[in-house]
Amino acid sequence: MNVGIVGGGQLGRMLALAGYPLGARFRFLDPAEDACAAPLGSHLAADYDDEGALAGLAEWADVVTIEFENVSVEALERITGTVPVHPAPGSLAVARDRLEEKTLFDRLGIPTPAWAAVDDRAGLERAARTIGLPAVLKRRTLGYDGKGQEVVGDEGDLGAAWDRLGNLPLLLESFVAFDREVSVLAARARDGSTAFYPVSENTHEEGILRVSVSRPGDPAAEPARELSGRILDALDYVGVLALELFEKDGELLANEIAPRVHNSGHWSIEGARASQFENHLRAVLGLPLGDPSPVGLAAMVNFIGEIPPVEQVLAIPPAHLHVYDKAPRPGRKIGHATVRADDERELRTALDPLLELVGLPARSTRSRPPASGR
Amino acid sequence: MNVGIVGGGQLGRMLALAGYPLGARFRFLDPAEDACAAPLGSHLAADYDDEGALAGLAEWADVVTIEFENVSVEALERITGTVPVHPAPGSLAVARDRLEEKTLFDRLGIPTPAWAAVDDRAGLERAARTIGLPAVLKRRTLGYDGKGQEVVGDEGDLGAAWDRLGNLPLLLESFVAFDREVSVLAARARDGSTAFYPVSENTHEEGILRVSVSRPGDPAAEPARELSGRILDALDYVGVLALELFEKDGELLANEIAPRVHNSGHWSIEGARASQFENHLRAVLGLPLGDPSPVGLAAMVNFIGEIPPVEQVLAIPPAHLHVYDKAPRPGRKIGHATVRADDERELRTALDPLLELVGLPARSTRSRPPASGR
Repeated sequence: MNVGIVGGGQLGRMLALAGYPLGARFRFLDPAEDACAAPLGSHLAADYDDEGALAGLAEWADVVTIEFENVSVEALERITGTVPVHPAPGSLAVARDRLEEKTLFDRLGIPTPAWAAVDDRAGLERAARTIGLPAVLKRRTLGYDGKGQEVVGDEGDLGAAWDRLGNLPLLLESFVAFDREVSVLAARARDGSTAFYPVSENTHEEGILRVSVSRPGDPAAEPARELSGRILDALDYVGVLALELFEKDGELLANEIAPRVHNSGHWSIEGARASQFENHLRAVLGLPLGDPSPVGLAAMVNFIGEIPPVEQVLAIPPAHLHVYDKAPRPGRKIGHATVRADDERELRTALDPLLELVGLPARSTRSRPPASGR
Repeated sequence: MNVGIVGGGQLGRMLALAGYPLGARFRFLDPAEDACAAPLGSHLAADYDDEGALAGLAEWADVVTIEFENVSVEALERITGTVPVHPAPGSLAVARDRLEEKTLFDRLGIPTPAWAAVDDRAGLERAARTIGLPAVLKRRTLGYDGKGQEVVGDEGDLGAAWDRLGNLPLLLESFVAFDREVSVLAARARDGSTAFYPVSENTHEEGILRVSVSRPGDPAAEPARELSGRILDALDYVGVLALELFEKDGELLANEIAPRVHNSGHWSIEGARASQFENHLRAVLGLPLGDPSPVGLAAMVNFIGEIPPVEQVLAIPPAHLHVYDKAPRPGRKIGHATVRADDERELRTALDPLLELVGLPARSTRSRPPASGR
């Protein structure tokens, strides 16, 4: 089974690690010569949208998938005649454009923060009056890790936000002073069957995910799964999809979807019976889905910009290290560690020193409203 | 961290899968062009003892280890000036020669079946008289999966056994009608610290391991660990070592050691907090050992000669598939599946259909005295 992956970053790397035991082989399309997934398969060093490279990938592969959604939908559509592409380019088209995404949420009756499309300076003024301030101005496409968005506190901020982002199609969203952020990872197989992971409770800083905690039995699980299921079915989706939500006064508001395995599900490698990576591959390969139920409790801490001393991470008994073999750079995700434990006390005992190693205060895993509403 | 591995089979493959998350990269020395570990790293296609290839591996690697013990000790010793080699060639010298191995067991007061070295036809007669029959005539070196041994039922069998094996140094061992076979996997770090896995209860057929069941809390655990600890310390061993034992009337008799990760520890990928593969790498890389304690119950079933339909394996919810991507051949280990479960009932429910898929009777996981005493 040959799996072609568009993108060769850490998600591709972890897909390959989960996929070799299933009997798969991997080829990555990634322009970076040092793409960190490359040692785990063969590497096509070309642009994501390079027609020749995509055609070559399609020729070699039994299925093509992505680990990075900012790919040209048109380029992917061109290879669908040669090879199955999962998730389908149409799903990517929705997920990579906040306007399409919000329109889908509305159509499916999925609550979101108030929002309005912004195409010009006057449109921004109108949107601000309609949905009220504070709000967050976001690029419709190509945003990630909090990049491409500006908080607009009051009318005086509108001009500066426009100057910074106004060269691209935008969306203004009401700022939500949420109680917490959660996400739900789900897999949907080719036959329409689904598997939902326990919700992840996520803590971001400066728009970058820092900590995700698996919350088996969380009260948000059922409503989150129900919302995710609507999206999966509406898109006739195949693969793993992440749905990020704000929780405010017990209500869930959809923030965004990611049409791929997701950082907030990395804990599933050790903390679920079948990880998100394995289930993504099972789904796109047309195999039965694995059991997403939890194996104890788990929490993941990202390593941003630097990896703490490996000996110190590994000296925490329930800690599992995941180094991505990427060049360190400020703000760059270059690894993570997961703590898996049998009970809350053990989890806490292991998580606190791990948080300390990355400079986060102990017991900082409940999310607080950050400066940005993300 | 560059890890050079002598051998590129499934053990190398699983070492690499466990090692990438630690930040390691891999190079395999294996003469087979289709070595199944090769897609997971770079591949030196040369004989295990090829001086130039070994020198190249030593130059590239931060540490060299093995996944296959039938390597020339002299060839490995030559590179120890360039790169650390773990386990040390001296440990391999003991483990690959049954005479050295039994001599070590005797020196350490570790009980074994009665044995005698056999160097010629007359020596075989003497040995048979000394230790009695039935017995098993074994090659001192290069035996594996029950190959290179002959059961000698009575004096009339001596001639035929000699004719089949007598061209090499031999050992005659008393045939043990054991109650069961167990093994204990242990890791020893560079600083001498150790980690012991729960004992595995093993079922062989025709000399080939078919099923291993992790037995947390087994009464054999403490004595098995104590015996293993003696060997690890005596050899100043670094890495994972397997000790295989016969149990007869509540007594443990050492059968053999393997100076590497071992088939009877494959269940540890899902069934232990840190797998044997991770702990072997942690040990040889000079990192702290991971926690070998069990995560629930686990049992592994080997796929010999053929892989059952993948969809059927994966449809058993707690089953984890491990395909080695090797060409199928009768008697060849080409994959395994592990069932991990929270309790005995769940384990049983999943294990029985898995056994059925490979043509073994359900509940066949207690070992019985086979035709050969192994």
